[in-house]
Amino acid sequence: MDSFDLVITNGICVTAGDIAPYDIAIKDEKIVLLAPSGSLADANATRIIDAERGYVTPGGVDCHVHLQEPAMFGKGTSSDTYETGTRSAIAGGCTTIVGFAPQQKTEPSLLAALAATHLRARGNSYCDYGLHLLVGNPSPQALSELAALRDTEGVTSLKIYMTYAALQLRDDQILSVLLAARGHRILTMIHAENGDVLTWLTSQLEAASLFAPKYHATSRPPILEAEATNRAIALSSLIANTPILLVHVSDPGATLRIRAAQTAGQPIFAETCPQYLFLTRDDMDGPGFEGAKCVCSPPPRDKESQEAIWTGLRNGTFTILSSDHCPFDYDDGESGKKTCITEDFPVGRFKEIPNGIPGIETRLPMVFSSSSEGRLSLTKFVEVTSTNPAKLYGLYPKKGSLIAGVSDADVVIWYPEGKDRKGLDMTITNGMLHHATDYTPFEGRKVGNWPRWTVLRGRVVWDRDGGGVVGEKGYGEFVKRGITSYMLEFS
Amino acid sequence: MDSFDLVITNGICVTAGDIAPYDIAIKDEKIVLLAPSGSLADANATRIIDAERGYVTPGGVDCHVHLQEPAMFGKGTSSDTYETGTRSAIAGGCTTIVGFAPQQKTEPSLLAALAATHLRARGNSYCDYGLHLLVGNPSPQALSELAALRDTEGVTSLKIYMTYAALQLRDDQILSVLLAARGHRILTMIHAENGDVLTWLTSQLEAASLFAPKYHATSRPPILEAEATNRAIALSSLIANTPILLVHVSDPGATLRIRAAQTAGQPIFAETCPQYLFLTRDDMDGPGFEGAKCVCSPPPRDKESQEAIWTGLRNGTFTILSSDHCPFDYDDGESGKKTCITEDFPVGRFKEIPNGIPGIETRLPMVFSSSSEGRLSLTKFVEVTSTNPAKLYGLYPKKGSLIAGVSDADVVIWYPEGKDRKGLDMTITNGMLHHATDYTPFEGRKVGNWPRWTVLRGRVVWDRDGGGVVGEKGYGEFVKRGITSYMLEFS
Amino acid sequence: MDSFDLVITNGICVTAGDIAPYDIAIKDEKIVLLAPSGSLADANATRIIDAERGYVTPGGVDCHVHLQEPAMFGKGTSSDTYETGTRSAIAGGCTTIVGFAPQQKTEPSLLAALAATHLRARGNSYCDYGLHLLVGNPSPQALSELAALRDTEGVTSLKIYMTYAALQLRDDQILSVLLAARGHRILTMIHAENGDVLTWLTSQLEAASLFAPKYHATSRPPILEAEATNRAIALSSLIANTPILLVHVSDPGATLRIRAAQTAGQPIFAETCPQYLFLTRDDMDGPGFEGAKCVCSPPPRDKESQEAIWTGLRNGTFTILSSDHCPFDYDDGESGKKTCITEDFPVGRFKEIPNGIPGIETRLPMVFSSSSEGRLSLTKFVEVTSTNPAKLYGLYPKKGSLIAGVSDADVVIWYPEGKDRKGLDMTITNGMLHHATDYTPFEGRKVGNWPRWTVLRGRVVWDRDGGGVVGEKGYGEFVKRGITSYMLEFS
Amino acid sequence: MDSFDLVITNGICVTAGDIAPYDIAIKDEKIVLLAPSGSLADANATRIIDAERGYVTPGGVDCHVHLQEPAMFGKGTSSDTYETGTRSAIAGGCTTIVGFAPQQKTEPSLLAALAATHLRARGNSYCDYGLHLLVGNPSPQALSELAALRDTEGVTSLKIYMTYAALQLRDDQILSVLLAARGHRILTMIHAENGDVLTWLTSQLEAASLFAPKYHATSRPPILEAEATNRAIALSSLIANTPILLVHVSDPGATLRIRAAQTAGQPIFAETCPQYLFLTRDDMDGPGFEGAKCVCSPPPRDKESQEAIWTGLRNGTFTILSSDHCPFDYDDGESGKKTCITEDFPVGRFKEIPNGIPGIETRLPMVFSSSSEGRLSLTKFVEVTSTNPAKLYGLYPKKGSLIAGVSDADVVIWYPEGKDRKGLDMTITNGMLHHATDYTPFEGRKVGNWPRWTVLRGRVVWDRDGGGVVGEKGYGEFVKRGITSYMLEFS
Ligand SMILES: [Zn+2]
Ligand SMILES: [Zn+2]
Ligand SMILES: [Zn+2]
Ligand SMILES: [Zn+2]
Ligand SMILES: [Zn+2]
Ligand SMILES: [Zn+2]
Ligand SMILES: [Zn+2]
Ligand SMILES: [Zn+2]
Repeated sequence: MDSFDLVITNGICVTAGDIAPYDIAIKDEKIVLLAPSGSLADANATRIIDAERGYVTPGGVDCHVHLQEPAMFGKGTSSDTYETGTRSAIAGGCTTIVGFAPQQKTEPSLLAALAATHLRARGNSYCDYGLHLLVGNPSPQALSELAALRDTEGVTSLKIYMTYAALQLRDDQILSVLLAARGHRILTMIHAENGDVLTWLTSQLEAASLFAPKYHATSRPPILEAEATNRAIALSSLIANTPILLVHVSDPGATLRIRAAQTAGQPIFAETCPQYLFLTRDDMDGPGFEGAKCVCSPPPRDKESQEAIWTGLRNGTFTILSSDHCPFDYDDGESGKKTCITEDFPVGRFKEIPNGIPGIETRLPMVFSSSSEGRLSLTKFVEVTSTNPAKLYGLYPKKGSLIAGVSDADVVIWYPEGKDRKGLDMTITNGMLHHATDYTPFEGRKVGNWPRWTVLRGRVVWDRDGGGVVGEKGYGEFVKRGITSYMLEFS
Repeated sequence: MDSFDLVITNGICVTAGDIAPYDIAIKDEKIVLLAPSGSLADANATRIIDAERGYVTPGGVDCHVHLQEPAMFGKGTSSDTYETGTRSAIAGGCTTIVGFAPQQKTEPSLLAALAATHLRARGNSYCDYGLHLLVGNPSPQALSELAALRDTEGVTSLKIYMTYAALQLRDDQILSVLLAARGHRILTMIHAENGDVLTWLTSQLEAASLFAPKYHATSRPPILEAEATNRAIALSSLIANTPILLVHVSDPGATLRIRAAQTAGQPIFAETCPQYLFLTRDDMDGPGFEGAKCVCSPPPRDKESQEAIWTGLRNGTFTILSSDHCPFDYDDGESGKKTCITEDFPVGRFKEIPNGIPGIETRLPMVFSSSSEGRLSLTKFVEVTSTNPAKLYGLYPKKGSLIAGVSDADVVIWYPEGKDRKGLDMTITNGMLHHATDYTPFEGRKVGNWPRWTVLRGRVVWDRDGGGVVGEKGYGEFVKRGITSYMLEFS
Repeated sequence: MDSFDLVITNGICVTAGDIAPYDIAIKDEKIVLLAPSGSLADANATRIIDAERGYVTPGGVDCHVHLQEPAMFGKGTSSDTYETGTRSAIAGGCTTIVGFAPQQKTEPSLLAALAATHLRARGNSYCDYGLHLLVGNPSPQALSELAALRDTEGVTSLKIYMTYAALQLRDDQILSVLLAARGHRILTMIHAENGDVLTWLTSQLEAASLFAPKYHATSRPPILEAEATNRAIALSSLIANTPILLVHVSDPGATLRIRAAQTAGQPIFAETCPQYLFLTRDDMDGPGFEGAKCVCSPPPRDKESQEAIWTGLRNGTFTILSSDHCPFDYDDGESGKKTCITEDFPVGRFKEIPNGIPGIETRLPMVFSSSSEGRLSLTKFVEVTSTNPAKLYGLYPKKGSLIAGVSDADVVIWYPEGKDRKGLDMTITNGMLHHATDYTPFEGRKVGNWPRWTVLRGRVVWDRDGGGVVGEKGYGEFVKRGITSYMLEFS
Repeated sequence: MDSFDLVITNGICVTAGDIAPYDIAIKDEKIVLLAPSGSLADANATRIIDAERGYVTPGGVDCHVHLQEPAMFGKGTSSDTYETGTRSAIAGGCTTIVGFAPQQKTEPSLLAALAATHLRARGNSYCDYGLHLLVGNPSPQALSELAALRDTEGVTSLKIYMTYAALQLRDDQILSVLLAARGHRILTMIHAENGDVLTWLTSQLEAASLFAPKYHATSRPPILEAEATNRAIALSSLIANTPILLVHVSDPGATLRIRAAQTAGQPIFAETCPQYLFLTRDDMDGPGFEGAKCVCSPPPRDKESQEAIWTGLRNGTFTILSSDHCPFDYDDGESGKKTCITEDFPVGRFKEIPNGIPGIETRLPMVFSSSSEGRLSLTKFVEVTSTNPAKLYGLYPKKGSLIAGVSDADVVIWYPEGKDRKGLDMTITNGMLHHATDYTPFEGRKVGNWPRWTVLRGRVVWDRDGGGVVGEKGYGEFVKRGITSYMLEFS
């Protein structure tokens, strides 16, 4: 038998399709052998990890991550860099992210925006990464660059916004983007909230002197998301049913609209995030300014909505589950949540709270733990947090699976049941996390498991009981992506 | 490296989750190694099959097969025995079937019914097989036997009928079955057509002297299936949402009702069959008595319905795709379709046409071929014809997957593209099939591929270019089944 | 100007279409003149009633009234006769009822059943009345009598049951009834609850020793009504969309199903009753056996369902609002609610509580009062309690409207706002009612108005402040009915 | 008995609620007596009209009429003035219209816009008329004038647009309008088509050199109407469910969305027009430029959509049926349809075809005729063309009904069945119409009846067999309107 770089023996391996015990051999950054459980325990390998019957999953793929983006919506500045954000990722079992290369409204070129982002990311990442183009200006020039983006740059997805003054596209602009994207089989992600409506509602609230963080939710009622979602689906249908992805869906009404489109056979994909599974709008109603810690868009909804989102995750309405990691320090009046606290607004002003929360490290542990509570099967967990994102964004089968000779050796090994797990059932505290942000919205939540080891291209980069982050900045590589596997079916 | 019994090299392997090139090594009836494509080309193995870049899929699992059942609905007798039916199965790439052990209305015991069926199957099967209990009489005794069925006999599913005088259960009886089934986490399959209504409609048609085969469809309009489906779902909801499977769904209205239940999070599963994807009611309107060749229940619908069934297959409404192989000879006045031709009814009498069509051998080739037409992805093909049936009926991961050290070495190897495939694109003729039935309803249909080799537990049992059926009667084993993987999520 | 028998001046007249002040002149039992408000104040008339700006509405038409029917479901006996029931009707503003002529399962003839009911009603009624045939046995003879029923007897509607052992028809029998009814444009009323299911649920509850009145609701969950409603609509669609009326709808799920059919253009009509607007299942959970006072079928549902029924009334889903007056004494161990109290069942046994409640007198005041709370417009009130029942059951325009020269002079005059109304806002007590039943389920409810005068064919039969019931037994006449106005649109 | 100005005897009177024979007496512009049929045949009256058993209906109320509006969308100019348009109205049985007072985008005041329109209408009208404000600029000043509009000017409705560059309001502006309107219980009419999308689609079509009239339909696909309708309903829900009216609904998808809102109890009203009942998009595909005759917005749809609109009319989804009379000459290169024919565009350019068709005169005859084909009951006909518009726009009960002492004596008398009706079944030709437009899109259509006499406030203004238009310009009065009757229920 050959010699291997790494063997994982005695694990219960879970993929999107299967769950069963088998051993995994790794060589030259790739998975090279899947063999009966225990059969590789004595293999000729540089390193052998005994999973002790713990679960082994493909490395997490998180395709909705904001890092070091220039401030586009106000005064807030990302509290994480590519370095700190990806460090946090691997500590949470995530081996690949896709971040955003934001094109400003005043910038005609997408390629230029991409180049600028590369400068920030290159050499700084602990995990592998790809990039989406965030289109602020769908100029003819920009749209003419899609071929180059795809063929040369390995960028095969765009994100557009139906809200935020700095980014909001009108419906005709969206159609132009969809038409161009379809021509190159590029996937368009849509942030669906009706910007005109929320601006108006915000004015009304401010006119009534309602400024506290909790009014963020009031200014963005569910119907505003459902409406925009319906509109986005209509626009897709006008471009010969070109595939779109509705990002960070939070509202049951939007979910039902998406489901109806899927029922009719339209290629409508949807993403949800941990904040819609674990937070509610009550979390924005803390004492003083505390609620700002949970201010993100769309806002967390009510308890009943949470249940509907779980149901949608189980029945396949949601294709992927991402973090939408978009971090700002809380206790920072220069560039964090508290920038909106001024003399005139001593407890802040919801409309100027930087929108977004950190979550790249907690995503996998929190959702994995839900599987033991029967909320989600383990295969579904892998499907929505790793395999489907990889397929949807053209990273598959390199990422998101455990295929001999094909997949990168990106693996998470979880603690076995009954193992003394260093404090598991553990409680999340910000102190244990590896981002650079000064809080987590999930402070105090219990989780039932945590990645014990994270392996990226055959190398152990996270060893919870043996040094924590043991990977290095710069080991993470930029990954050129192909077109979405799903796109193939509809074009 | 170990020595192997069989190595399949150079194939493109497809499972429910993945599609990628890798090699498979087999030993002692099991898959024991998955390795990089080509890496086992020179392995130490008794036999090495070069797939020549053809697709390699898990052996087909067909969980809706009627063989050698005693006549319960009229004069027709199954034209296939366990021997001929399973011979046909392996020639079509199907390595496991689940047949029915029918309990007559006059028979109080399920165990007795099972024993009787074992006598017919044992030693006669070319492929592995399990058995469902077909419950004609949900007597207290019968329901008290469920524990033994599951724990001792490896039978974990029941089928019940909402139609057919000999088998129709009333809603209160169905509730009793569901309650008992839930207690033992046994899955209940439901044939959902409103029997009272179709009996009435049949009387009306006969009163109007309408006897031709095509009136079979008239007597069973779509609404009658949609109604019964709605009722079955309501009954399930009354038993704490106990999981049920709606078998052989043909109607878009029924499909939408199932989809609505799934959207709401209810554990409603559904099956469809090739006849609802490839036949229409026009096929029952042939010259003379020809239409009888396509008489099955529910009847094939119209073109638009076909499209809706395809859509339901793609979007996940249908969990499985089975053959509902239920064969009767056509040209046989004693026990086949023509038993209903008498002096009084020279062109037959639709209500006495034995209901059912053969299809065990054509199922996989016909649906596989649709994948190249873009109707179904290959992973979806494997999912609905192999993996999901295995999971749903407690055969997984022994069956339905390709897991090293775990899965039985049941594999189908398809012809590569461009290969001289002995007449492929081939045309189906009954002469090339291996059942004992004198016709196929798919006569003359083109398919684009066919299993080149079928491997059952490591042994080549079908070698299309090297002898055809090379397996042996009796090699197929009875498989005790566990409880459905899906059931675990809902109980 | 002519002389009149009666003039009503100074009223605000409300019909299904209009609301405006005008005077009404009556002669020879008919309305003969509508004239500007006050213009007939000095007319030459035997009697002039000054409505003092109170509302004037057409006499109520209550087409769902059970009186003096033979016991078919158990030991209970109607506590009202035609005499006492119709006395109660006029005191509540109801001038026309349609009762039931029940055909027993053992009785082959509908005409015989009708004749038997005539014997009970004739000469005993205070208000006008028609009769529906309640079909217990849809024998060929029975169905052959429909032409005679319609053409000779003036009976143009049937009621059938999907529950109750004594009456439950199977789906094939229902189809036979619908087919025959369609042939004669007779309207079929359907009591839609799944009898097999509720029988089974009742057994389960009894097996668990749950006998209290409140379990009546448990034994008849909403889904059982929704299911049967769906089935009834399917059956109608099979008979070329023959019109049906779903009686006493209580469940939002059933309501939505009906609404969907109406949206699609099917001729599905629906009725609801005050018990589904004013009672909830909590009312069946009183101390001891008290809950039995509200036991009727379907049972009252929860608060949210009530709101959905109000919404359905407002948006037109419900065509009519009837009382389903079906009275049994409460404190009566021989023939009332307490017949089910025995030594073995000291607090009763829900399955043997006679099903039904009294409500013929309270229907109009309670619903009229809701109009001042903004729950229902006054025109809608008249539409669903008088005009639509008259149209639906072939009584229009003789009944249900205020048309000069055409309509019978059946009128209700309500107290004006601000009038000292003898205790209004009054509280309902059984003592003030005129039925022979020993309780009302609405005891203690407030109403905001009550009929001040009731006029039947020109004669004051109820004068609340001048003698109460001033009409006479036997003044009420049997009314032969024509076919439903609505039927004309669909046939 | 008094003396009367006019008596109509021997008619079959139809209102929204009733249909029955009775006589009508008129004095001082009002209906003063409704009496048994024939009883007024010898009354003391200036004139007695024998309806000869013909139907008698309230005068038509058409609340969507464009006359003499300044060109806001392009070069087209209204081919009808208030004089010619209202002349056409009475010849078609319409006694009241509501036109539009258009506020330009550059005009801050609504009152000024109203004053300008009054100048055009005053003294020129053959029928009574009211005015809606068409809001092009919802400035603070404009919205502050709503109280004066309602209380002083008798204007209680607004129309706003989601399309047309000159008029399109953004969603935030719409919210401002709805909020202000709600405060004054003013009804907002919404033209719901997505302007951004249609502009984009138009560009695409032009880029492909597709200019013919039929591409007007292509540029405004149904989804664009359904989307905007969904959005408008969402906006209403955000303003506490303030009532809105969706005008000129043409698409089944939009209809279903409206229906869903009504099912949920939201106060969403809808209008459709004859063009969606009688034309299809094929009518825009005539030879040469002929199709331009049917170019209006939204465009007529397909045959199946027509059926859905009829169904919606029958089941109450549509509250009113208006003409949307918006006439342009066809054969006129200066200001008519042909303005878009230039050297560069010899067969025209669809995007510059003036949008709109004439139909004020044909509305009632065409729809009335449909009642005899069983498409619509006569009461429904009156309801949607006269009574409901009057109620919805605050004209009731002065208009839209036949109430003694209350309603204006506005009456249409139709030809009796069997009467020699001067060419009836007649064929519509433009020559027989009384507008000033050079064509009718309904040329050659058959109708089964036509108004024989039209009576406006007691005066015969149209006598088909006795002089045709016998009313006079200027007899028509401006009618101040109250708030909608329906609004009362929701505020
Ligand atoms: Zn976003
Ligand atoms: Zn984001
Ligand atoms: Zn079956
Ligand atoms: Zn079967
Ligand atoms: Zn009933
Ligand atoms: Zn009843
Ligand atoms: Zn418009
Ligand atoms: Zn218009």
